[in-house]
Amino acid sequence: MCFAFEVAKIDPAAGRLGRLTTPHGVIETPFFLPVGTAAAVKALTQDTLEDLGAKIILANTYHLYLRPGHELIRRLGGLHRFMSWPRAILTDSGGYQVFSLSELRKVTDDGVRFRSHLDGSEHLLTPEKAAEIQLALGSDIAMVLDECIATPAPRELAQSALRRTTEWARRARTYFLECGRRKGKLAQWQFGIVQGATFADLRRESARQLLELDFPGYAVGGLAIGEPHAITCEMTGEVTALLPQDRPRYLMGVGRPEQVADYVALGIDMMDCVLPTRAARHACLYTSEGRVLIKNACYAQDERAIDPQCSCAVCRRYSRAYLRHLFAAGEITAAILATHHNVHFYLDLMKRIREAIEFGNLAKFSSAMHARYAAGPA
Amino acid sequence: MCFAFEVAKIDPAAGRLGRLTTPHGVIETPFFLPVGTAAAVKALTQDTLEDLGAKIILANTYHLYLRPGHELIRRLGGLHRFMSWPRAILTDSGGYQVFSLSELRKVTDDGVRFRSHLDGSEHLLTPEKAAEIQLALGSDIAMVLDECIATPAPRELAQSALRRTTEWARRARTYFLECGRRKGKLAQWQFGIVQGATFADLRRESARQLLELDFPGYAVGGLAIGEPHAITCEMTGEVTALLPQDRPRYLMGVGRPEQVADYVALGIDMMDCVLPTRAARHACLYTSEGRVLIKNACYAQDERAIDPQCSCAVCRRYSRAYLRHLFAAGEITAAILATHHNVHFYLDLMKRIREAIEFGNLAKFSSAMHARYAAGPA
Repeated sequence: MCFAFEVAKIDPAAGRLGRLTTPHGVIETPFFLPVGTAAAVKALTQDTLEDLGAKIILANTYHLYLRPGHELIRRLGGLHRFMSWPRAILTDSGGYQVFSLSELRKVTDDGVRFRSHLDGSEHLLTPEKAAEIQLALGSDIAMVLDECIATPAPRELAQSALRRTTEWARRARTYFLECGRRKGKLAQWQFGIVQGATFADLRRESARQLLELDFPGYAVGGLAIGEPHAITCEMTGEVTALLPQDRPRYLMGVGRPEQVADYVALGIDMMDCVLPTRAARHACLYTSEGRVLIKNACYAQDERAIDPQCSCAVCRRYSRAYLRHLFAAGEITAAILATHHNVHFYLDLMKRIREAIEFGNLAKFSSAMHARYAAGPA
Repeated sequence: MCFAFEVAKIDPAAGRLGRLTTPHGVIETPFFLPVGTAAAVKALTQDTLEDLGAKIILANTYHLYLRPGHELIRRLGGLHRFMSWPRAILTDSGGYQVFSLSELRKVTDDGVRFRSHLDGSEHLLTPEKAAEIQLALGSDIAMVLDECIATPAPRELAQSALRRTTEWARRARTYFLECGRRKGKLAQWQFGIVQGATFADLRRESARQLLELDFPGYAVGGLAIGEPHAITCEMTGEVTALLPQDRPRYLMGVGRPEQVADYVALGIDMMDCVLPTRAARHACLYTSEGRVLIKNACYAQDERAIDPQCSCAVCRRYSRAYLRHLFAAGEITAAILATHHNVHFYLDLMKRIREAIEFGNLAKFSSAMHARYAAGPA
């Protein structure tokens, strides 16, 4: 068996420690997935990602389906080989990007019809198609297609999206299992996604319906898209309370540095977010003392490292003054160094969170992070 | 003495082998300087430059003077410390950029008055000022201010620029030596620049005049700016024939891969060019078989390395198909990987040229390079 998930320590109020085994390596949970949208984590090389200790990355099915195409990637031996990344990969279903990036989308029970944001070409993404693309990509973990809606949403809309999400999950699961029967054991795990917007009872209903489909892991989707953090936490807690302890739980698209520990405390094992990489490119650096907006004039002659407490290769070598200069000059190297640091920060944050769970200190850790990060931009 | 130049092998028809010693390391000649305009080689980190074996880089005085300012860099301990680059640095005088980038420039015998291309602010660059800025930057090798003119140029214009270049060189040398007398031994070498456009007698006259100023090294400037390669070589040869054997010769702003060996054969020891880094960002990759324009559709499914003969980290890990995809997707990582490869190519090219000189094969090496690279873009 290539896949396994073991929970080594469970404290209902203070997070879970575990190990997720994939065909491409073992990952300690809880963990964070750097986002590599188009088969590349922006401004980093795979060598650097390995040096940083990233054990798994996320790639976007929507982007890779449109360019270079999943069939091309399949012919070239799958995504791991295509991008020369021997460690684990999770792919999303493409649903979220269809809803956020593409034009003229039309959702029916069949699937979602959309126009490419690249060339306007028309495509139909169905639950089966999303599963097929991800099988072609050969990711370790694939996500089912779900219907994503904006929040706050009227209850009727949330209900109808929930109903459709469950039905799509059923079709995706059936397609996936059928492929497995035809082709032999698949080297992929397929996760379900709980929806239900900001309605606790709908979240619970969605979770219960997906549990019937017996996924090896469950994600919580459609959160952290504008609602208050307290609501994100409440909805997440409603779902994790119902999910089986022996399956990994994945909160999609989160989160800010000070929020990550809160999600872990609610029983979340996996998170992904563009924040560390995107913020880096916008000159926002994360440190043990809070954000450093490195373009600020106060850093022009600051010879300290971005974070004097940080052990990353960037903090060991460069000053704030130099980083500020690189951003002012519009140098690509600015994005490289800033991304390196921020990804290190998030991976290190997860390590410190795992240590905090080990020692029963997660609540304290979370308070300290909120104190440093509560104010200001993401 | 921190500086030294030894020529180990001289074959008038086939190049020179030597060693240039600087306060920041010993460099085997002939060598190539990757260009780090704004204190960064675009898309590379200093770690990567070290891994690639770069022993010296060029930084642009014009850019650093305008941003972040030479006084700031001086206060932060000089350019080596500012950019955390412990190896050698050469700075140009800023003259070429004033003539090519800035607005409203007005040349008088005093110097050149110009407006910043960044904010329109007005500045006066004199020979003394250019020397002062470079002393503040603390580069290992500084260049004197010269008057750059476009070619083909009328003889009168070339003559007047030559006259002014010599006069500016004299003032720069006087200023530099005076600083040395006031402050004690300077950790910098100052090189003169031979001008004279495409007139052989003017080139010789410029060289003779500069020789009187007794620079520790001499550059040939104002070439490879549009004139045919044969003219560049002819002018270079006119100059190197007059230069002392015991001083390094630097041909500025060259060259294409197939031209480099020709300049070395003419007795050139040092070259710099934005070509490998700029071409990389435009998806033009240099290989042992010629150029690979990686965006071409023919590479979409090409699983080979950029150059199967190349030992660089990019060729060891990634396929042409992946590189092409990264460029198509506009990923920063495309620039990073392509630049890494192209800089490796140029540094390796110089290594192979040094080997060719060692074995007396430089002419053969040059012919082979011309055969592979003569046609097509730079």
